[in-house]
This record gives sequence, C-alpha cells and structure tokens, in this order.
Amino acid sequence: MLISHIGIAVKDIDSAIETYKLLTDSGEISIEDIPDQKVKVAIFDDVRQGNSLGGRIELVAAASPDSPIARFLDRHGEGLHHICVYVDDIEKKLAELSAAGVRLIDTEPRIGAGGTRIAFVHPAGFGGVLLELEERRP
Amino acid sequence: MLISHIGIAVKDIDSAIETYKLLTDSGEISIEDIPDQKVKVAIFDDVRQGNSLGGRIELVAAASPDSPIARFLDRHGEGLHHICVYVDDIEKKLAELSAAGVRLIDTEPRIGAGGTRIAFVHPAGFGGVLLELEERRP
Repeated sequence: MLISHIGIAVKDIDSAIETYKLLTDSGEISIEDIPDQKVKVAIFDDVRQGNSLGGRIELVAAASPDSPIARFLDRHGEGLHHICVYVDDIEKKLAELSAAGVRLIDTEPRIGAGGTRIAFVHPAGFGGVLLELEERRP
Repeated sequence: MLISHIGIAVKDIDSAIETYKLLTDSGEISIEDIPDQKVKVAIFDDVRQGNSLGGRIELVAAASPDSPIARFLDRHGEGLHHICVYVDDIEKKLAELSAAGVRLIDTEPRIGAGGTRIAFVHPAGFGGVLLELEERRP
C-alpha cells in the first residue's frame, strides 16, 4: 500500500458526497474541518476493526475564500487536487528529497487530518502533481 | 481500501520512474505494455506474500501518437490522469451508475493491466475526474 489518500477539490461538498457515494461500495464517511489548511474534508474510508486501511478518497472544499482550495478551484475548476503517499520516516524522506534537489513546500512536518504527520512536496518536480507525504503509523 | 491505483500521465517513463523512486520507500516496480489502450505503464506496487496490497502508483506513457495518453498530454501536460476504485461486482456497479444517470465510457467491463476486469466512467459526472472501476478479487 503506497497511497494513503487522494484529494479531490470540489465546490459543493454535500452534492459531491452524494455523487461519490454512488461509486463506492463500502467505506465510512466522516467530515472534518482542518482550520490550518482552511478546508472542509469528507473522508471516504475503509475501516476494519477500528483501523483505516488507507486508500481513502478525500473530497476537499474551501472553508473560506482565502483557502488554497478556493484558489485551486478558481484556476483549475473541480478535479484531482493531490495524492498522499505513505513514508516510513517523514523527516528522513524530506531530507532525502531536499538533497536530491526536489522543491519542498513544507520543510518540516505538520499535523494533518486525523492527527497524522504530513508534509507537502512542490508539484514542479513531479509533472504537476501536488504530493503529500504521510508518516505511516506502526 | 477503496483505491486500487492512481494513473499519472508522463512524457518520458524512464525519467519519471527515477523521480518517483525518490518518493516511495517500498514497493516493486514492473513495466507493462497495454496494447488495448496504447500505453506503457510503470507500476509501483506494494507486494507482500505474492499479493498486491493495492494503493498503487501507475505512471502512464503513450505507446503511439494516437494513444489517448498522447492526446491527454497535448491538452493538459503531465499530471494526474485517473483514479481507479475497487468495486465488488463491476456489472452491478455499471448498471447502478447508469440507472443514476452517470455517463459511462465503458458500458461493459474490459481487461486491464494484470488481467483485472475494469471499466471507465466519464469525468463529466465527477467534477472532471476520470474514474476507472476495478473488480476486487476475492
């Protein structure tokens, strides 16, 4: 399992939830506000025995007009916004990427949805794909 | 686990493989030609005890100038191309989506990478996201 989740930028989170419900057979849906990123997130997760199996779909809407998601929607419209990849040691991976000349958005980890340790990598080095790293929990 | 894989359209598959190797801690890489879709795919997979855990990253390059990926790259450049979601019964899911008025690209399943049964759903109903369905194996 390499992918923690993908983030899809949406304008109307309630309508997007109804649409994505059509698509997914299983999974719990939870709604979370992430004030740090000024977003509201609907997480489609596959939870078994209390643990997320990863491979989640996250619908991301702007919580305020100055949210990064509002700017994304203005420029690109709705669609795939980022992918989040699991790493074992986030500080080590950020140091490796930096040493390889990859441009980072976050040089230090910060706290994401569900209290995970995350960092964003600039899309420039990855063919326009905004990447998030998430430290895998033991 | 909801996501089988994400597909990222790339121009030069060898250079993209080197870049994505930097990002991923684990995973086996395999290269596959899919003549049906006129693409060459590099699959970053997490294989344990002979089984893919899903959540794969697939780098997709055009195998010929009339490949759908060549057209995508001309229009959009490199970047996220599609996401693939697991479903339990692909015929049933296609019928459900069709009944709900969702526009399908494939009304019947076809065979994708690794011999899986897949079908594409039109991005119009999903905020510009090209969706692939893959039947989950028992």
